[in-house]
Amino acid sequence: MGESREEKIEESVASVLEEAKELQDSVAGHISKSLSDEHPLRQRALALDSKILSLRSSLDSLLNNKLINHSVADKLDEDLQRARCIVVDGDASSLLPGHAHGKFLRMFLGPINVRASRKDVQLKVKEEYNSYRDRTALLFLLFPAALLILRSWVWDGCLPAFPVQIYQAWLLFLYTGLALRENILRVNGSDIRPWWIYHHYCAMIMAVVSLTWEIKGQPDCANKQRGVQLFLQWAMMQGVAMLLQNRYQRQRLYTRIALGKAKRMDVVWGETSGVDGQLWLLCPILFILQGFEAYVGLLLLNTAFAGEISEWQVIFCGLLLVVMAIGNFENTVQTLLVKSRFKAKMRRTKSKQRLD
Amino acid sequence: MGESREEKIEESVASVLEEAKELQDSVAGHISKSLSDEHPLRQRALALDSKILSLRSSLDSLLNNKLINHSVADKLDEDLQRARCIVVDGDASSLLPGHAHGKFLRMFLGPINVRASRKDVQLKVKEEYNSYRDRTALLFLLFPAALLILRSWVWDGCLPAFPVQIYQAWLLFLYTGLALRENILRVNGSDIRPWWIYHHYCAMIMAVVSLTWEIKGQPDCANKQRGVQLFLQWAMMQGVAMLLQNRYQRQRLYTRIALGKAKRMDVVWGETSGVDGQLWLLCPILFILQGFEAYVGLLLLNTAFAGEISEWQVIFCGLLLVVMAIGNFENTVQTLLVKSRFKAKMRRTKSKQRLD
Repeated sequence: MGESREEKIEESVASVLEEAKELQDSVAGHISKSLSDEHPLRQRALALDSKILSLRSSLDSLLNNKLINHSVADKLDEDLQRARCIVVDGDASSLLPGHAHGKFLRMFLGPINVRASRKDVQLKVKEEYNSYRDRTALLFLLFPAALLILRSWVWDGCLPAFPVQIYQAWLLFLYTGLALRENILRVNGSDIRPWWIYHHYCAMIMAVVSLTWEIKGQPDCANKQRGVQLFLQWAMMQGVAMLLQNRYQRQRLYTRIALGKAKRMDVVWGETSGVDGQLWLLCPILFILQGFEAYVGLLLLNTAFAGEISEWQVIFCGLLLVVMAIGNFENTVQTLLVKSRFKAKMRRTKSKQRLD
Repeated sequence: MGESREEKIEESVASVLEEAKELQDSVAGHISKSLSDEHPLRQRALALDSKILSLRSSLDSLLNNKLINHSVADKLDEDLQRARCIVVDGDASSLLPGHAHGKFLRMFLGPINVRASRKDVQLKVKEEYNSYRDRTALLFLLFPAALLILRSWVWDGCLPAFPVQIYQAWLLFLYTGLALRENILRVNGSDIRPWWIYHHYCAMIMAVVSLTWEIKGQPDCANKQRGVQLFLQWAMMQGVAMLLQNRYQRQRLYTRIALGKAKRMDVVWGETSGVDGQLWLLCPILFILQGFEAYVGLLLLNTAFAGEISEWQVIFCGLLLVVMAIGNFENTVQTLLVKSRFKAKMRRTKSKQRLD
């Protein structure tokens, strides 16, 4: 009885070992076959991508030298856009080299690849990023608001250090997460402007600096805490900006996804359709917030140079806020310019089509 | 002339658009084919993995009921280990579900997949992690040492706030990077003990808390800065521990890689061979460092309760250090126990084989 069991298990173990070796061979074979199948496809995608670029530049030169009819050029331009959309937004996009992993990602994560190989995963990542921003934006607004309200109602105009520091540590964690996620989105082919990522680097630095900022108590804390108070007000404004941007961006993404499902090539047309009205509501508010950001920065510098608070943190945060406000303003204007140029072109194309 | 150029470019654009559509179809086909080829391989890997586990448990029960010869059981056990090594360390490993992406990774990175699909990439990630640790470990030792030396030689026994805060911010960045990388390694199948990752979470919290720690100046700063000074001494000790661990771990990895290249199945035997001597040198030093860690924690608590420094940061860091020391000690002992049990088994197997 024991003998037969021993034999049986010996047999099973031997067969398992054999199976493992076979599996290893099959998997290795599958991987190398998949790679070799991918190679010609990747070559084709790269060649097509550069062909589209060269055709666009020759189209431009023909148009500049008036060697081509305007309406024909517009139609060809549109076709080239469609072709590029298929290559860049379709399944082939995983074969093209993405934005390189920036220094920031390599610093925190090492050489691991964070590129999703399938387009639906990429969209999922973007959706999750938006819902993450949503979840945090409200807290972003309520946390500093609660601190400021408690300050005047409960704490007698004097912020205690601990809750403020908890808030600052949370800000640091939040901005680090956002910067990491945005870098990952960029690697996955998102066209996010680099400035918005730099903006989060600045905010990370600001959060670290604010942590080292000594929060003085009584007596005369209203004066001593002027800097911290301004910082909290700025943070609240950031919360408002974030909520508005989220609303706008999410709508844009949903338009994109809906269009992508309906007809992949039309994705680019979705960029401006349907959300234009909101953009023109969003922008004035963004400009006001940017003005407020610069104002808070200048106030901080003023309190520092008036000698009320002499800490280096106040001067540093003041300068950083002014730089961030200028950068934000510049990039918002540039985004608007690109969008209005694109829109003018669309309108021209459409009116031409109607005439034809 | 213009006309013919116009026709020519119209033709090219049409063909490019056609090519783009064809490419999209081919790539979509390739992806779905690759997935469907992978499916049966994944099933086989999963089935094999569970078969190995069930054989191991039936082998154990046979052995416990003395229904099998000891030397036969040892031989079968070895074969099962080999089979499992092929499945878990070979190319098939990418098909098995890895450790799930923990909360920490999802918090910072979102739902992106950080699993490398090929074994050589996984090894590269581990190598880069080790060299990252190397690069930072020296700085880890020298930075606080420089601060402490400058304190007594240049700064008259009084640390200025700014360089200490730069150092604390750097610590926070470093520990965040280490925690992220270790989580990524775990997803990629590394058998790193969870405690060492928790340890880095604790160190992250400690770094944040230390940033909020007010560094008081003259007069009587020697007394007021006692906490900061102890913190710097602990950090230096951490640097020493890290350098030693790096040396040991790198040697272990190289042994693994070398064995893997020579004969994949023998990977597991490399785990303890060649580096045992070093482990027995490393451990006493680690125990001394852990003792020092607990001592620093208790000193911090003592200064806090003696009323010299009343900040909550001192009490918190003191408690955290004691907890970390206890956890480190427990986990080092457990690692040693596992290794010595494994070694005893190997010795038993080898002496049996010699007798046979």
